[in-house]
Amino acid sequence: MPARSFSPPASTPSAQLWTLPGGLRVAFERRAGPGFAFDLRVPVGNAHDPPGQEGAAGVLEEWLFKGAGGMDARALQDAFDDLGVRRGGGVGPEATRFTASGLGADLGAALRLTACVLIQPELPEAELNVLTDLARQDLEGLADSPSDLLAVHARRLAFPRPAGSPFAGFTHPASGTLEGLQALTSAGLRAHLTRYGQAGSVLGLVADLEPSEAFELVQRALAELRSGQVAQVPAVFRAGGRAHHTDADAEQTHLSITAPGVAPTHPDWLAWQVALTALSGGSASRLFTAVREERGLAYAVSASPVLLGGQGFLSAYAGSTPERAPETLEVMLHELARLPQGLKPDEFHRACTSLTTSVVFGAESLRSRAGSLTRDVAVFGRVRPISELRARLAALTLEDVNAFLAGYNPVGHATVTTLGPVDPGGPLAESVFSLPAEVHHA
Amino acid sequence: MPARSFSPPASTPSAQLWTLPGGLRVAFERRAGPGFAFDLRVPVGNAHDPPGQEGAAGVLEEWLFKGAGGMDARALQDAFDDLGVRRGGGVGPEATRFTASGLGADLGAALRLTACVLIQPELPEAELNVLTDLARQDLEGLADSPSDLLAVHARRLAFPRPAGSPFAGFTHPASGTLEGLQALTSAGLRAHLTRYGQAGSVLGLVADLEPSEAFELVQRALAELRSGQVAQVPAVFRAGGRAHHTDADAEQTHLSITAPGVAPTHPDWLAWQVALTALSGGSASRLFTAVREERGLAYAVSASPVLLGGQGFLSAYAGSTPERAPETLEVMLHELARLPQGLKPDEFHRACTSLTTSVVFGAESLRSRAGSLTRDVAVFGRVRPISELRARLAALTLEDVNAFLAGYNPVGHATVTTLGPVDPGGPLAESVFSLPAEVHHA
Repeated sequence: MPARSFSPPASTPSAQLWTLPGGLRVAFERRAGPGFAFDLRVPVGNAHDPPGQEGAAGVLEEWLFKGAGGMDARALQDAFDDLGVRRGGGVGPEATRFTASGLGADLGAALRLTACVLIQPELPEAELNVLTDLARQDLEGLADSPSDLLAVHARRLAFPRPAGSPFAGFTHPASGTLEGLQALTSAGLRAHLTRYGQAGSVLGLVADLEPSEAFELVQRALAELRSGQVAQVPAVFRAGGRAHHTDADAEQTHLSITAPGVAPTHPDWLAWQVALTALSGGSASRLFTAVREERGLAYAVSASPVLLGGQGFLSAYAGSTPERAPETLEVMLHELARLPQGLKPDEFHRACTSLTTSVVFGAESLRSRAGSLTRDVAVFGRVRPISELRARLAALTLEDVNAFLAGYNPVGHATVTTLGPVDPGGPLAESVFSLPAEVHHA
Repeated sequence: MPARSFSPPASTPSAQLWTLPGGLRVAFERRAGPGFAFDLRVPVGNAHDPPGQEGAAGVLEEWLFKGAGGMDARALQDAFDDLGVRRGGGVGPEATRFTASGLGADLGAALRLTACVLIQPELPEAELNVLTDLARQDLEGLADSPSDLLAVHARRLAFPRPAGSPFAGFTHPASGTLEGLQALTSAGLRAHLTRYGQAGSVLGLVADLEPSEAFELVQRALAELRSGQVAQVPAVFRAGGRAHHTDADAEQTHLSITAPGVAPTHPDWLAWQVALTALSGGSASRLFTAVREERGLAYAVSASPVLLGGQGFLSAYAGSTPERAPETLEVMLHELARLPQGLKPDEFHRACTSLTTSVVFGAESLRSRAGSLTRDVAVFGRVRPISELRARLAALTLEDVNAFLAGYNPVGHATVTTLGPVDPGGPLAESVFSLPAEVHHA
């Protein structure tokens, strides 16, 4: 047993932060109760797919579960199911997550099985065709879901791949591309797997254990995990982009706006969260009121923060009728354009109350708390105690938020992607975009 | 203040069950912590829409929030948002739910606002056109979501409206029909609202309060709620139905199977839950293994229980390619057809472990616990303690489950609905269905 050469616990009353000798960071919080939950985040996502092998991370994640540690696929699944463990996770743009939750006595076994998948996967050749084929089916299914398809188009337009990047970047969905899937080989995927290791990885864990016991279990399961590689895929935002994708059969027109935001580590992060909540956090929010309540333009409208490449971006969406889409787009852009004028006191108060409630409820379930521990360490480099988040929100003033907003002009740099039977265009849309619309026909 | 003429608390260690003089049943569970959650279920859903006024419950639910108790729509929304309360709920086939969660001090205000919406809604005439128009947009959007559209078609085929029923029944989505929305009038909706009252309604509440304090808050907010009407819409299942809906533009073929199941109050309910879990509860489940893992036929496949009209039904779904859809349908039907042969010991063990874990995690969050309290009272007439559920699962034997399964033949009475570019058909499908396929062209 190696000496416990881990970092001293962070100065929070409840959460412990350790670093294994191999580099894996572990955030642990003790919670009384019968269950456990963990969330292991490995910083290799589909944006890390090698160019021309789009789909590598998605297929590899499925392949890992096709047997490990001498168990075939069926035996491995049975082993997880025998524990009654609920597994989750999946492949995102920047990371692959492996999550599990279950009853306390099974934590050690669940950690060992998950580690086994990463450390000793069987990777049977015979399964590879089946998996690329399933990925192809998933990809083809995208055509039946216009809002998901729009999201892929929007990301591709807003975050083009920088020339010479060693990564495929943000231009493809998790399932890859038809060409990328075709090009996948078992040797290529095995080489890609060497990236998946302790470097940059974070394990968030909540369980009713002494910290030393928790550390023992994690150490025993994961100490042998390879070192891996960590690299941030650059998210180079293309401001002023505009594209319409014609889908003659669509009943609705789907609208997506992407605009710059604030990085999590920036001092204005919290002010931006408050502004986004006023914009889209409830039935009294600006977008919901202006688009749906006052004008009945769209059934669904929302805006949310998106983190890519260590930066923050605003992503807004609406689904409207083809006839009302131009006005919907104008109203959405108008709401973004008036953000620099600042929030009113009641909007500010409501947004802070809503965020405070979210903080409290977000810490409630084991699964969401494990996810927050992992996200905190991955994004902020430490665990933010709930009490600190509440205190910061309480200390924030309307003046702070409005001082930030006075210099925040998302519309001036927005990129707009639409999908539907006809291009919605519109005068405000035309006036604010420097680039002409690129019209793609389906 | 009326005397507390409520029923004695049920004999559970933690949950209290009261009945207000007007008939509202209240299930309360005390939980230490900063938050509260409640779930008010009023037994009027879209199946209760008057024939020819399909969409009534959906539009009415939106209309209720357009101002109440002297507040206009904006003031009402601001009042909810000022509390930082997260609202939820919506219209299902058999009930409309009003849920809220927030910080403890705001429970009384959140209950009063919710009650106000039901008791003193403003129902402004000018909003009605906007709301029916939004419902129409939602309805048109269905065409862009084949799996949702399939679910509507499947329910319509499986549960046709009995001749002479005073209710529109299960043949339309929550947003209604174009004709039904056209026919809605303010007088008709106001008349429909008289059904929404204490009769048959259930409030599940979790908060950190003395039971007597909780009762006071509920009583003060909801005692004035009208009596309302409760009526169960009969779910008359049409066995052996078969329909294909042609969508020439769809990339995928979507498959839905509906079959009889077990009513919640039947002694075999738990055995059926175990069988469904073995069929579809995890990556080692029969459907997932047979359809996806062994044959790569479909990316998504699942089966779940559906409760309608006090009965239980099995509902299975898969999305496949047009080429593989016939085999996918056959494999799914084959898995249902072999249920009478019973489970193997390891399948039984895994399913019981999985259900036990679900029971523990289902009680974890305030919101899900409030929902469980409400559902327990609505479906079982009482709150089932977590300890009882665990004990029952522990007492269940493989022999119990297999004795039930020996007499359970879902395929013999299944109804199948498909949607995609071509009718999947298939030999087993043809052999098991007594009725010829009705082919609908889009």
